[in-house]
Amino acid sequence: MPIKQPQADRENLYRIFTVAESAESTLSKIERQISSNLIGFLQQHIVTNAKDLAELEGDFVDTNLPEDPIYVSQQADYLLNQVVANSVHTASPAFVGHMTSALPNFMLSLSKIMIALNQNLVKIETSKVFTPLERQVVGMLHRLIFQKNDAFYQRTLHDSESCLGGFCSGGTLANVTALWVARNCAFAKTEKFAGISQAGLYRALKFYEYEGCAILVSKRGHYSLSKAADALGFGRQDFISIPVDNNHKIRVDLLQQQCEQLQQARIKVVAIVGVAGSSETGSVDPLADMAAIAKQYGVHFHVDAAWGGPTLFSQTHKHLLRGIELADSVTLDAHKQLYVPMGAGMVFFKDPRHAASIQHHAQYIVRKGSKDLGRYSLEGSRPGMAMLVQSGLKIIGRKGYEVLLDLGIETAKKFALLIQESEDFQLVSAPELNLLTYRYIPAEILQLMQLKKIMHSREVNAALNRIMKQIQKTQRARGKSFVSRTMFGFEGNEDCPVVVFRVVLANPLTTVELLREILQEQREIAQEPFLRSAIESAKLVVLSA
Amino acid sequence: MPIKQPQADRENLYRIFTVAESAESTLSKIERQISSNLIGFLQQHIVTNAKDLAELEGDFVDTNLPEDPIYVSQQADYLLNQVVANSVHTASPAFVGHMTSALPNFMLSLSKIMIALNQNLVKIETSKVFTPLERQVVGMLHRLIFQKNDAFYQRTLHDSESCLGGFCSGGTLANVTALWVARNCAFAKTEKFAGISQAGLYRALKFYEYEGCAILVSKRGHYSLSKAADALGFGRQDFISIPVDNNHKIRVDLLQQQCEQLQQARIKVVAIVGVAGSSETGSVDPLADMAAIAKQYGVHFHVDAAWGGPTLFSQTHKHLLRGIELADSVTLDAHKQLYVPMGAGMVFFKDPRHAASIQHHAQYIVRKGSKDLGRYSLEGSRPGMAMLVQSGLKIIGRKGYEVLLDLGIETAKKFALLIQESEDFQLVSAPELNLLTYRYIPAEILQLMQLKKIMHSREVNAALNRIMKQIQKTQRARGKSFVSRTMFGFEGNEDCPVVVFRVVLANPLTTVELLREILQEQREIAQEPFLRSAIESAKLVVLSA
Repeated sequence: MPIKQPQADRENLYRIFTVAESAESTLSKIERQISSNLIGFLQQHIVTNAKDLAELEGDFVDTNLPEDPIYVSQQADYLLNQVVANSVHTASPAFVGHMTSALPNFMLSLSKIMIALNQNLVKIETSKVFTPLERQVVGMLHRLIFQKNDAFYQRTLHDSESCLGGFCSGGTLANVTALWVARNCAFAKTEKFAGISQAGLYRALKFYEYEGCAILVSKRGHYSLSKAADALGFGRQDFISIPVDNNHKIRVDLLQQQCEQLQQARIKVVAIVGVAGSSETGSVDPLADMAAIAKQYGVHFHVDAAWGGPTLFSQTHKHLLRGIELADSVTLDAHKQLYVPMGAGMVFFKDPRHAASIQHHAQYIVRKGSKDLGRYSLEGSRPGMAMLVQSGLKIIGRKGYEVLLDLGIETAKKFALLIQESEDFQLVSAPELNLLTYRYIPAEILQLMQLKKIMHSREVNAALNRIMKQIQKTQRARGKSFVSRTMFGFEGNEDCPVVVFRVVLANPLTTVELLREILQEQREIAQEPFLRSAIESAKLVVLSA
Repeated sequence: MPIKQPQADRENLYRIFTVAESAESTLSKIERQISSNLIGFLQQHIVTNAKDLAELEGDFVDTNLPEDPIYVSQQADYLLNQVVANSVHTASPAFVGHMTSALPNFMLSLSKIMIALNQNLVKIETSKVFTPLERQVVGMLHRLIFQKNDAFYQRTLHDSESCLGGFCSGGTLANVTALWVARNCAFAKTEKFAGISQAGLYRALKFYEYEGCAILVSKRGHYSLSKAADALGFGRQDFISIPVDNNHKIRVDLLQQQCEQLQQARIKVVAIVGVAGSSETGSVDPLADMAAIAKQYGVHFHVDAAWGGPTLFSQTHKHLLRGIELADSVTLDAHKQLYVPMGAGMVFFKDPRHAASIQHHAQYIVRKGSKDLGRYSLEGSRPGMAMLVQSGLKIIGRKGYEVLLDLGIETAKKFALLIQESEDFQLVSAPELNLLTYRYIPAEILQLMQLKKIMHSREVNAALNRIMKQIQKTQRARGKSFVSRTMFGFEGNEDCPVVVFRVVLANPLTTVELLREILQEQREIAQEPFLRSAIESAKLVVLSA
């Protein structure tokens, strides 16, 4: 602790709100120190250090507010030594477990502009040029998805009564917004009814004479959708999971059946949700077929393309999303495969009048007829993220995103081959996009299973799952690399789910060589003494199966 | 346009994902250019340039995706010349119209750490140390509000089944989250009912035998609350606005009456919302009285302290928020008076088990029993903003925030005096916190009004409102300073609302001298020819009143 401390007086506080002028100022020096320390950290190819969470918590137990000010340099040192050092290196090529992506280095530099300007996109008065800029970016991606013509965009792009979509903090809010619009349109105003937005869900169902209202999505749908169902008043019970086939795609026949049954039970289907790049397996639903069913029953069709949306940049792979242009609304996360910093989700509406169903106004901002973006958003104040998305689109270009997308899928396919060729790993879901899942099974046990033609049995899976969990947790704790895990069932074997390693390949610096090393690390963990008994008992289970 | 362009090939893309090593790299040079340009911009004491929005929109009409990549330097130049130059200078001392605040300069430097690390707070696996750090920050502010003892925080701070609150993108989501919790607790699980979270709002009301469910808040409540009412399925009709007294505080007697009436009508009051620093006038509701009514009717008491919460830092003014500790939940915006960048709202729950009512899980993240923060949030992925809030709390300290708070209120009171002493301005709402509203009335007309004892008449207000709107729009368009405007009625005169200038004083660099200049600018605009006829007709209206 230094003896001299800064004073909490006005003079000092004026100073911290005044811009540091010169490159020789203390703050500029601190900033350079931060930069060089961060570079050091970002160049380490490990995921995190091996300190465990309980130990770290010990440093964060004091709930008394700091009374006196400290110097910026003291806090900068603290952050670099205690926080940066114990964070997760999401940009590491060995971090292949989640959808939190590495960032192109220019995003760090350009973010400075966004932070310094501190614009608030809720209204023109606090954002000015950022408002038309956001509308343009939304328009570009709307066009990528829905392929409307020039006349359409000329008419709607900057029209105050049109909303092609908007930014929000992430895919979850994008899904909530889309389903909110779907719900409000499903129970719209009539001559005798004020509309659900005014009258609420209870009176809406009474007026329309329904016994409930439902959302339909495959079992691989993101958990944000059931959260949305809860928040929007549907209840998780009417968030209906449709089984998937063995490629993790929704069973369209069962979807149709469910629609029929619900219609007969007077449950209003408010939305059918297609998944374009599921979080667990990267699978894409048959969107065109789903759109046809939605049309048949007059239901809003939403596509959750938070992950997979940018596949549309690739001439080679965009066909995988065929039918997305038939959606009424689409979710896309810019902080995933558009590679911008955390906090950039987007929702798009095919019909620019659709979002009018959730419109709201106030006297001092977002006035009727204004161009304030806050008229159509669930959030109020929000930052100028569109600036970074625009920068990505221009600096990387459609062609650059295509290269990144194609590379991820190519790497995933090579990794799948590597797994299939090994005698102690099993590919569980093949990559359709740049995700795959697999599991470790000791070679001897895998041979036995093949011999005895055991695919999935409750006992065998349970025994293997225990091993898998241990390997994943150990690898994560050691911090050299990170692969996530999830668990799902298979058609006809829903009751004996498998635990799998889940790999997301979106960092262009992740090589097949590195993935080979990750497999090797998992194999070596499996051979450590602490797993011996679990493996022995798995063997016995398979022998007696 | 330079002739040479970068290629969208793999080699180039690897490069942008690799950290720029040296201070001599192109990116480092670009970053220095950005910094010096931003400093230039931030030191200008004007709010925005005079270009109008329609003109700016002309630069953002192309919806075709950029096909080929460009250099970072090209985009940096574009951003600095086209975007920064046409943005709103929210940090200007002459920007006193909205709650988007100036930032202490260290926030810009430390934000770099947040952006570079790109942590995702939804789960430990993508945030590690950021998770206990966020819990600690939430704990500190929880303690500031609810003043629980050490034992309480030792038990709950890092407990996976406790939730003292959490970060979200802004006050709107904080309000939505609090009301979602209130709603789910009001229609909880019983032996015979699965709970609203499972069964939905329609079945919940049927089971509990209610005809509707309502939220009560004063007419000065933030518009996000009615938006929340819509999204959560209440309907805006059951979002009930209680009249305010002439100090803009909720009429507690009418609140009590309304509760009584709703109870008799079998409408369940789900939440009573107190306002601690209203967006329009900065007024604070009588929180303790409201808490007593909420207790009497067994209703969730939420306090929206998005703006006013940090008043608790001030020994001199914290008494204004007396009763906030009785709330069940509280909203606070860190991107307002905690001075962190846009995108940092917070919600707090007195009872650490309360948020269990909105809990959700998934197989691959936010697993049951885990410490993943995403188990209790409406959002999924979100950034490590808590790091910046912690930095503010430590670098500014409780005492520093106190100085800032006291200064803002002091400046507001001085400005109010200035307005009262002038012969052509009228103070409409006196500052309780650091907000006030006033209007311009030509001296001659104001004298006449005082002579004829006209306070509010529909015709007079309508005539003055026209002048006010013109002055505000003109001042905004010229860009030298920015004062916002709003409109509200008075007790007994609800039908003849007044348009007022609204001033928010949170930038410590805003001096009384500058505010005097802003008044002078408004006075001068009023004397310009284009307002002559509006002023003449206002005079006639007052004469004939």
